[in-house]
Amino acid sequence: MSQVAIIMGSKSDFDIMKEAIEILKSFDIKTEYDIVSAHRTPKKMIKYATNAEANGIKVIIAGAGGAAHLPGMVASITSLPVIGVPIKSRNSIDGWDSVLSILQMPGGVPVATVALNGSKNAGILAAQIIGSFDSKVSDKIKAYKKDLEDKVIESSNDLKKKA
Amino acid sequence: MSQVAIIMGSKSDFDIMKEAIEILKSFDIKTEYDIVSAHRTPKKMIKYATNAEANGIKVIIAGAGGAAHLPGMVASITSLPVIGVPIKSRNSIDGWDSVLSILQMPGGVPVATVALNGSKNAGILAAQIIGSFDSKVSDKIKAYKKDLEDKVIESSNDLKKKA
Amino acid sequence: MSQVAIIMGSKSDFDIMKEAIEILKSFDIKTEYDIVSAHRTPKKMIKYATNAEANGIKVIIAGAGGAAHLPGMVASITSLPVIGVPIKSRNSIDGWDSVLSILQMPGGVPVATVALNGSKNAGILAAQIIGSFDSKVSDKIKAYKKDLEDKVIESSNDLKKKA
Amino acid sequence: MSQVAIIMGSKSDFDIMKEAIEILKSFDIKTEYDIVSAHRTPKKMIKYATNAEANGIKVIIAGAGGAAHLPGMVASITSLPVIGVPIKSRNSIDGWDSVLSILQMPGGVPVATVALNGSKNAGILAAQIIGSFDSKVSDKIKAYKKDLEDKVIESSNDLKKKA
Amino acid sequence: MSQVAIIMGSKSDFDIMKEAIEILKSFDIKTEYDIVSAHRTPKKMIKYATNAEANGIKVIIAGAGGAAHLPGMVASITSLPVIGVPIKSRNSIDGWDSVLSILQMPGGVPVATVALNGSKNAGILAAQIIGSFDSKVSDKIKAYKKDLEDKVIESSNDLKKKA
Amino acid sequence: MSQVAIIMGSKSDFDIMKEAIEILKSFDIKTEYDIVSAHRTPKKMIKYATNAEANGIKVIIAGAGGAAHLPGMVASITSLPVIGVPIKSRNSIDGWDSVLSILQMPGGVPVATVALNGSKNAGILAAQIIGSFDSKVSDKIKAYKKDLEDKVIESSNDLKKKA
Amino acid sequence: MSQVAIIMGSKSDFDIMKEAIEILKSFDIKTEYDIVSAHRTPKKMIKYATNAEANGIKVIIAGAGGAAHLPGMVASITSLPVIGVPIKSRNSIDGWDSVLSILQMPGGVPVATVALNGSKNAGILAAQIIGSFDSKVSDKIKAYKKDLEDKVIESSNDLKKKA
Amino acid sequence: MSQVAIIMGSKSDFDIMKEAIEILKSFDIKTEYDIVSAHRTPKKMIKYATNAEANGIKVIIAGAGGAAHLPGMVASITSLPVIGVPIKSRNSIDGWDSVLSILQMPGGVPVATVALNGSKNAGILAAQIIGSFDSKVSDKIKAYKKDLEDKVIESSNDLKKKA
Repeated sequence: MSQVAIIMGSKSDFDIMKEAIEILKSFDIKTEYDIVSAHRTPKKMIKYATNAEANGIKVIIAGAGGAAHLPGMVASITSLPVIGVPIKSRNSIDGWDSVLSILQMPGGVPVATVALNGSKNAGILAAQIIGSFDSKVSDKIKAYKKDLEDKVIESSNDLKKKA
Repeated sequence: MSQVAIIMGSKSDFDIMKEAIEILKSFDIKTEYDIVSAHRTPKKMIKYATNAEANGIKVIIAGAGGAAHLPGMVASITSLPVIGVPIKSRNSIDGWDSVLSILQMPGGVPVATVALNGSKNAGILAAQIIGSFDSKVSDKIKAYKKDLEDKVIESSNDLKKKA
Repeated sequence: MSQVAIIMGSKSDFDIMKEAIEILKSFDIKTEYDIVSAHRTPKKMIKYATNAEANGIKVIIAGAGGAAHLPGMVASITSLPVIGVPIKSRNSIDGWDSVLSILQMPGGVPVATVALNGSKNAGILAAQIIGSFDSKVSDKIKAYKKDLEDKVIESSNDLKKKA
Repeated sequence: MSQVAIIMGSKSDFDIMKEAIEILKSFDIKTEYDIVSAHRTPKKMIKYATNAEANGIKVIIAGAGGAAHLPGMVASITSLPVIGVPIKSRNSIDGWDSVLSILQMPGGVPVATVALNGSKNAGILAAQIIGSFDSKVSDKIKAYKKDLEDKVIESSNDLKKKA
Repeated sequence: MSQVAIIMGSKSDFDIMKEAIEILKSFDIKTEYDIVSAHRTPKKMIKYATNAEANGIKVIIAGAGGAAHLPGMVASITSLPVIGVPIKSRNSIDGWDSVLSILQMPGGVPVATVALNGSKNAGILAAQIIGSFDSKVSDKIKAYKKDLEDKVIESSNDLKKKA
Repeated sequence: MSQVAIIMGSKSDFDIMKEAIEILKSFDIKTEYDIVSAHRTPKKMIKYATNAEANGIKVIIAGAGGAAHLPGMVASITSLPVIGVPIKSRNSIDGWDSVLSILQMPGGVPVATVALNGSKNAGILAAQIIGSFDSKVSDKIKAYKKDLEDKVIESSNDLKKKA
Repeated sequence: MSQVAIIMGSKSDFDIMKEAIEILKSFDIKTEYDIVSAHRTPKKMIKYATNAEANGIKVIIAGAGGAAHLPGMVASITSLPVIGVPIKSRNSIDGWDSVLSILQMPGGVPVATVALNGSKNAGILAAQIIGSFDSKVSDKIKAYKKDLEDKVIESSNDLKKKA
Repeated sequence: MSQVAIIMGSKSDFDIMKEAIEILKSFDIKTEYDIVSAHRTPKKMIKYATNAEANGIKVIIAGAGGAAHLPGMVASITSLPVIGVPIKSRNSIDGWDSVLSILQMPGGVPVATVALNGSKNAGILAAQIIGSFDSKVSDKIKAYKKDLEDKVIESSNDLKKKA
């Protein structure tokens, strides 16, 4: 049974959204993913959001571009935490449209927004949420953070050698 | 039977949205209006959008602030023309959030967006849409535009008197 | 006799604006199109806007970039509904100039603004306006929306096969 | 016969635009002023712009807010230099709309844009244009600039006294 | 033992941040709160972030204004999920500074960002995270969402009575 | 003797600024041009601005990018009209820096600002200023505007042939 | 002999700029201050910038609003470090104009820019520059930073008492 | 012993940051440089900032992109002057995120911010700071500024030859 559902508004979003899938896989967290469009498949979206909790999902990650309504609409239906990934799509006004459409939710219906195209961070955040209640996952995040640190130290050493 | 439905995300939007109601009344166009929140009453929103056409509605005007999903979500469900009114709500980032959330709809699902807080213009636009197929309404719009012109001429005369 | 007129400020806008022409053609709605510049052919613009209604036009779509005055000036003259398409032209400041020049019309003179480069949506919106009073067109829009939905479902199935 | 025409889109713009009138008066340059709306009185606007040169006008100053089309449309008709004053009107998106609608004119039709609400500077610029060909006016501008300098020196002295 | 820690950069942020405390209290979730400044008390910040997990904290909510580094720095140290609340402080550039300083975190270190001044939503999001693993909390969120819906229905009824 | 001086902050600006030179040449207006940097050659800039009027210059066109101080500083020294051309330089923040640095001059010291990279329009504006007092130049501008109109009509005819 | 010169473009900037004077006074660093306008007193500005180093000045702080050229122009003349304070003046476009006019200096001529209205921080930065070479000043900055920390701790204790 | 430390958040920042290193080398100022990430190596960052002064460093230059916390966090720990270089990284929102994250520091903790990608200017500013107390360095800056001037004069001569 999947713990994290990753949905996106269009197949063109997959190149960005697969980073969330991959990082969650690296933490051994089961995921499912699908294309669910708030604007073109509103009924599927509602059904998906309504059933997610009963299907065992703990966190939903939703990515969308432009006037990005998918994360907020899913959040309006489910009581699960929803992470929103603003995607800089073609004809976007520099990404501001998707950022503001996802971030500026009204009181009562939060969306946990990450950076523009920040799908990898959405995956890490989902893992952190699960990790708060699952020490195995938490340990993997700690290892991941240690690894990030080690890579910077390595870069630093490389730079010094070149100098 | 109402021809134009005016919906808004929250009762605090009524002060802005009533301008649409009033201008439509002045054109003798029958309206109905309601509070329908995409985020807090998603089911009502879907039902409302689904039934609008069968209820005789010709145009829907939807006003909302912040991450404003109401106009776009209604447009995703109905095939009627939907006019979106971005509202500058409390904690808005200068209105940019509602403008971009309503304007930047993806291909396939247009929202006819008017200016920030431009509820009166939304009413006039709805009347113009009806007027395209109803010469009585069209005549009233022509008279309204004539009146706008006359008021500017009058202001011009007042200014010259003072000079 | 054409029902929708599509005008644009410059021949370089045609690549964007032809999407409106094509989608309207797919709905069997008769269109006419022309280059009409508010700034370089103001007299032609006025004549065009003045005569549109008498020529049987029901909706005008006007696309322009930069300080885009064509949609608003046409709307000042005609009482038909005018749809404005902001175009991201060369030397545009990221499209903000055309978006704001078209959207932020003063009280009394609305322009139904669609997304940056959103010419296809302008065509769909024009069809929706006509469809409000013509059930054949309305049925085609419903079929189009069904088709959009089907394509997302198809993408979803493709994605699942790959997974 | 007036040398500078000052026009504005609405009587509510007069509080800003009168600064241009007053500074030009202080340079003994004859002015005329009027309310001319691109959107509500397009015919008057065209007539005004068409006749300005024959009426002896040398420079036109046009102020407008929101989707401000008056300066650009006047510039499309006349071959006189047109100075545009962006006005921060009610429901403006922080003035960006009027600034970009006036500034970002396409190739061939310039508008000499001044700062937001910069009506006084529009008057000075008009005087500088006239002063380029009229040494009496030029001398007055030089005196004005000297006076600006003196006032700063005076402020500086006041500040030092307090210190 | 508290499950949610609410920290803020300055006592002037308390008026905003108390909304998170109150909503969490209404869900019977134990909270602790403190003033912790990334810029003025960096050592306390590091200590706080380092110890939070061992102290039983499941989610950290961090609010800050301007160049808001508190949420991101806490997220760099802890592996708990961190929710960031951008606050529109005095001398903020319309809130853009705090929004972007919190949202645009680099790969590897997410902050779950909510709307400008969206402290209440930060509290609800924290509750949703806990609710994913605690059905009692989940039920309270469902009741809260039901209540939001009821209030809109009530507003709708009030509006109809007045009409 | 040149009537219009075209100056620019760097040789990399020449590709943009030459459009002003060429259009003025096409109007048979004598120009001179030079590289004058407010930041790297402040003394030359002051000397240039101080002497321009005595050298017979009627209008100065100044182009610069980034924190563009050249137009404003020249305007602070001379009493001639100064036209500013914001240039989108490398590392510019989308051109906003040069636009705002040139446009937003304080009371007393106007710069006639044209569109981003709008060097051609700067040339036309300079010609219009001269044309206000020289009917030969004014006639050439009228012919130029007629030519712009003819080209749009021609494009329109081409488009119709293709249709 | 003063070590830090604080200059500002207008007397209306004094309310902001006095914070720099006061904080420097608290560090026992001698200051001088004056009104020097790049646009209204360019000669005084040049003289001031030219002589500052010979007068013993180590750091110049320059504050200005709108199209703020004072910091950059002073930096073009002197080889001393120049700190720029963007001021949100009347008719500013939300402060963006002064921020970008000061920050985005071209290669070769840096201005050390601080936050909008950040005059106090300009004073502290000037002190840090002096403190790099004067351990007495450095000690005072360390004490100041300790004091900032203590005040946050105190606020934290106050908050806990109230809880 | 190095006088200027140049640190950056990631090895991908080196292409930008090396310009600071090179310009400082050209002034014969000793530098050290390293990769220090606020978010991935917070402990190293704190250690680095804490020890810099004791290691003889006079000025720290810190470059970072996105939600750029490195300059501000280093400034919170050290009492040395810190120069911040906003870097336009991949997925940046046009550089605004790094600019605002570095510039808009709260009262008490300044960062001397330079232009987007303005690493060379950061190096010059560091040299100016040292030059305020070291006449040899000051002389080199004066020579550098003279050289900048000469290059503009040379460009000017080249341009005239071509004309």
